[in-house]
Amino acid sequence: MSEVYDIAIIGAGPAGMSAAINAKARNKKVAIFEGGQLAKKIDWAPHIDNYLGFSKATGAEVAKAFIEHIEELEIPIIKKKVVKVYPMGDQMMVTTSGDNYNAKKLILSSGVIQRAKIRGEADYLGKGVSYCATCDGMLYKGKDVMVISDSAHHEEEANFLADICENIYYIAQYDEVEDLDERIEVIQGKVEEIEGGDLVERVKLDKGEYDIAGVFILRETVPPTEVIDGLELEGRYISVNRDLETSVKGVYAAGDCTGEPLQIGKAVGEGQVAALNAVKALSKE
Amino acid sequence: MSEVYDIAIIGAGPAGMSAAINAKARNKKVAIFEGGQLAKKIDWAPHIDNYLGFSKATGAEVAKAFIEHIEELEIPIIKKKVVKVYPMGDQMMVTTSGDNYNAKKLILSSGVIQRAKIRGEADYLGKGVSYCATCDGMLYKGKDVMVISDSAHHEEEANFLADICENIYYIAQYDEVEDLDERIEVIQGKVEEIEGGDLVERVKLDKGEYDIAGVFILRETVPPTEVIDGLELEGRYISVNRDLETSVKGVYAAGDCTGEPLQIGKAVGEGQVAALNAVKALSKE
Repeated sequence: MSEVYDIAIIGAGPAGMSAAINAKARNKKVAIFEGGQLAKKIDWAPHIDNYLGFSKATGAEVAKAFIEHIEELEIPIIKKKVVKVYPMGDQMMVTTSGDNYNAKKLILSSGVIQRAKIRGEADYLGKGVSYCATCDGMLYKGKDVMVISDSAHHEEEANFLADICENIYYIAQYDEVEDLDERIEVIQGKVEEIEGGDLVERVKLDKGEYDIAGVFILRETVPPTEVIDGLELEGRYISVNRDLETSVKGVYAAGDCTGEPLQIGKAVGEGQVAALNAVKALSKE
Repeated sequence: MSEVYDIAIIGAGPAGMSAAINAKARNKKVAIFEGGQLAKKIDWAPHIDNYLGFSKATGAEVAKAFIEHIEELEIPIIKKKVVKVYPMGDQMMVTTSGDNYNAKKLILSSGVIQRAKIRGEADYLGKGVSYCATCDGMLYKGKDVMVISDSAHHEEEANFLADICENIYYIAQYDEVEDLDERIEVIQGKVEEIEGGDLVERVKLDKGEYDIAGVFILRETVPPTEVIDGLELEGRYISVNRDLETSVKGVYAAGDCTGEPLQIGKAVGEGQVAALNAVKALSKE
């Protein structure tokens, strides 16, 4: 059986990192799942002056201090994108593009929820559109599919389809394809719309169209509502109470995903509150 | 007419400081009121490891970074204890032991609410027990009163009574009396109970008792429920919503006074959220 974490944290921004150091300070077994760059949004900020204790700092300096803090406390970072979380009695199974992990509590800290961006994407979600090749690939066995990917990080996930599907068309929304299975055909073009009847039938590009049965849209973050069934939103954000509990038992949320202001201090504070409430809940079990 | 602040902040702990730097970053006219030491609770902490970005830091190091941040942004600290806030139409009058100030919005960040500690204190509050000599002194004109004070900071406030009351007995719950009016009689003893009928009549010490009409209990912080009429609590803490609004219009609260966890990150986050919501409310006026 795989390792069981007390608390699994999805996303390594300020909320997730703050949650991790607080859970660790209470001696909990904790891991952060992050498929992309740590503290990316902060690292890119030219200047940060409203996180107390760091005056006149660059984003890169603040990001460095945050990452050092995580490293000093030896908090494991699992460099994988979480695609699905399944409730399993008093635990949860955390599925990444690759492996499964078990956790007792979950903290969602994956930042602002990306909305469906492609015309037809929202309409066909679950009807041919999927955000996870490893989860749903088998549904398209022997069929033609398209993969729309915004990062070379997803190539391994796309490669999973090579053994399963017939023709696989791959659109890279980034500079250079790095390590894609040779059975996958890289195509050029800008996606215009996903079309079909009850189910997806084709993708229209600016140059021509492709008949396919499934479209995998691989982005750095899977929307948390796709990751966890039954997660309630309030407008564009995850609905939480003052203890940062979501509508799903054992699942907390912190940072930009819970709403405005989208700021570091708020995220750090919520990460701490979510972690300490998760720790409190663990101690009652 | 006195200066009008956009936002007055009561208390210079992490919540108040975070609120101040965020309001200042949005170009608001802001001031922190603090009668005691800045960031006192942090300064006293031997070690802080759960505020993201400061790993293996002493409390003094974190306090220093916080104070430097405030100083670099040139945020005024008004070194006075706030004793009462009165609503005045669309502004509030902030009364300290000495002067009055005007503010459009208020953020309460004065830390954990001190509960009545002396036997009889809670029963006689408003019936002879007062937390503010300058506010309530005139009620005891020509009468005998006792002052129970936990800091030399309050001596100036006690001196205000010298011109008003008949006999003034002063109990110093600290090492050395510094600058007390000579008409005030310093007495020794440990307070045991405040007694009376409908109103206060006497204070019992371990050595003897004193017949008085009023007792002024002067501590570093006046409980926010005494400062602002109509402020609702939830248990021991100020009741707030996710926007950190209290039950009183224009009044926000942040940090330890809003409840557990009593931690720096949570306080910094709430200070930021309270300030940015106050700024948003100001922009709608």
